[in-house]
Amino acid sequence: MSVATPVVGPVLVIGAGLIGASIGLALTRANVEVWLQDVDADQVETAVAMGAGRPYMLNSGQSNAPQIIVVAVPPRFAAGVLSRASLEFPTSVITDVTSVKNNILKQAIEGGADAVRLVGGHPMAGREVSGAAAARKDLFDDRLWIVTTSPDSSSEAQSVVEQLALTCGAIPVRMTVAEHDQAVALVSHAPQIVSSAFAAQLVAAQEQHIAVAGQGLRDMTRIAASDSALWVDILSENAGPVAEVMGGVVAELQEVLRALQELAHGDHEHAEILDAILRAGAEGKARIPGRHGNAEIPFSQVAVLIEDKPGELARLFVAAGDASINLEDVRIEHVLGKPSGLVELSVRPEVAEALITALVSRDFDVKGIA
Amino acid sequence: MSVATPVVGPVLVIGAGLIGASIGLALTRANVEVWLQDVDADQVETAVAMGAGRPYMLNSGQSNAPQIIVVAVPPRFAAGVLSRASLEFPTSVITDVTSVKNNILKQAIEGGADAVRLVGGHPMAGREVSGAAAARKDLFDDRLWIVTTSPDSSSEAQSVVEQLALTCGAIPVRMTVAEHDQAVALVSHAPQIVSSAFAAQLVAAQEQHIAVAGQGLRDMTRIAASDSALWVDILSENAGPVAEVMGGVVAELQEVLRALQELAHGDHEHAEILDAILRAGAEGKARIPGRHGNAEIPFSQVAVLIEDKPGELARLFVAAGDASINLEDVRIEHVLGKPSGLVELSVRPEVAEALITALVSRDFDVKGIA
Repeated sequence: MSVATPVVGPVLVIGAGLIGASIGLALTRANVEVWLQDVDADQVETAVAMGAGRPYMLNSGQSNAPQIIVVAVPPRFAAGVLSRASLEFPTSVITDVTSVKNNILKQAIEGGADAVRLVGGHPMAGREVSGAAAARKDLFDDRLWIVTTSPDSSSEAQSVVEQLALTCGAIPVRMTVAEHDQAVALVSHAPQIVSSAFAAQLVAAQEQHIAVAGQGLRDMTRIAASDSALWVDILSENAGPVAEVMGGVVAELQEVLRALQELAHGDHEHAEILDAILRAGAEGKARIPGRHGNAEIPFSQVAVLIEDKPGELARLFVAAGDASINLEDVRIEHVLGKPSGLVELSVRPEVAEALITALVSRDFDVKGIA
Repeated sequence: MSVATPVVGPVLVIGAGLIGASIGLALTRANVEVWLQDVDADQVETAVAMGAGRPYMLNSGQSNAPQIIVVAVPPRFAAGVLSRASLEFPTSVITDVTSVKNNILKQAIEGGADAVRLVGGHPMAGREVSGAAAARKDLFDDRLWIVTTSPDSSSEAQSVVEQLALTCGAIPVRMTVAEHDQAVALVSHAPQIVSSAFAAQLVAAQEQHIAVAGQGLRDMTRIAASDSALWVDILSENAGPVAEVMGGVVAELQEVLRALQELAHGDHEHAEILDAILRAGAEGKARIPGRHGNAEIPFSQVAVLIEDKPGELARLFVAAGDASINLEDVRIEHVLGKPSGLVELSVRPEVAEALITALVSRDFDVKGIA
């Protein structure tokens, strides 16, 4: 049993973008001293102005070693920065926040980082905006923060990084480097590829065909709008595990494609393959945990048709709130040429009837429950 | 120029499920006489009780021919029912509501349906619940209703079916049978396959890997929960056009897979392929029309962190409503173990600042704007 090692600081954060500056804010909130460094002086200035720490300068009286160095730079620079930080501060614990672990930690060690003091980290938090100005002190509150384990790193370094996650408000979760990379390949990196590849089919599609798109296509392609430069880095660094997941996806799709081609020629026995994949898909979908991390709670969906004008959503949510009903999720259906909106409210099944009663009593057009 | 032929009725609706009963309600709303028939007497009884029309019985005084017969049965039965209806009523216009057109209309004609009076239809409306009890008179209001064109069908029959769509509150859109089937293959049928195939990868995945799933995986796999029996029918009937779209998707994914495999072996020049597909995906994504059918309006997203308790969403929407700001979309971020919720409000860019001001003045934790 290792004893928890508290975060006493100082913590040097290298890379004062969204994640780095948010770590600075979260640690400052916990009264930990933070030093900030970035190749972009504007980012440091913004982060300092927001209260994320003070600028780090060599030979400036900050010459005592930081307890922890957090590298929060883009994936392609992470390994080099980890190596240099380790060499510059031979006693500090070194960690990062990159969404890929094996390649980066391996390269960092090859570049001179001390494997004993190096522990990989990956906070499962982010925003669709970037930069220090978007930083928030509560960005990590109650989020998972994966801390990778390695036979080379000391139990003290491991403990320090877990305490860092806790101090930032997150829930540390231990995984091996390989487990981490496989997990994110499956739940994040491969979906990005599939979404982008599907959306790429729309580039040459006829306007009239795209015009009949519904919510299914929108959901499938939402993440295709992501920053391509960042994603090239992520996918390149985690190419092995992503290739493994994509190999399975491609094999499955090839089988379906062959079945469709046979079906198109009138050979209907191949419908079984479609049936198998559709059933497997439903089974796999059911394994994804719900909002509260519990796959066992199937929420009820209450559909309401509301007018597309200011205040209508407010009136809807006031009705739910007045009835003390907590909404787990809200989905607004988008349909071309449909100015009024179908809103689906997800609630725990036991309160669905009470919600409907509350809405109907205020003249809402409840379309049903599923 | 063909003259619009009004819907005078009676309209015989065969298949009194969600779509058939909703058509009955919509036509009854427009004072058109509706007859309902279904192999399941309970469905007819429910639809009649809801005011969707009256039951159709042979030799019961309803022996005058219907002006229009709408076949609203599951895809696998549609062709046979169209044929029989055409033979039984040699003067009625015959249409259907099936989401696949070429195979079904061709089979119907082969089975004896009169091509002159047969015009395919596909209302772009539906719900996640089925059956007559879920029917709504306004299900088709302002929705697209594709009406297929054919050199064989009369302009009068074409006009009658377009008027049927209008009478039900929908917007008729003309497409050839081939155009229709290609369009739905791209925007609906192929996404279903990709979503199911991806979700199928989760069946054998480790619990711990799935546990770190975020919104990206949830969006990608949402439609994988769909009814597999219905989808086997749809995909089988539209196998050709779906195979064409899936051929493109599979080829694209194979190219990415090869690039990933090369990258995993350290050959970094293949990153260009990733870059190309990610950029093409963003370009394709941008072509999907927005909620109001206009791809030109990029909404601004205002992110707000709210507490996970009854009334908080209400308070949020009241603040927006009081400021007379119309919300175009609402998205709640789901993250494992995160009881408080990040809510993204989409608004027209010109009102984003006013929304933020309104929210901040009521102590909301606005996380930024994108």
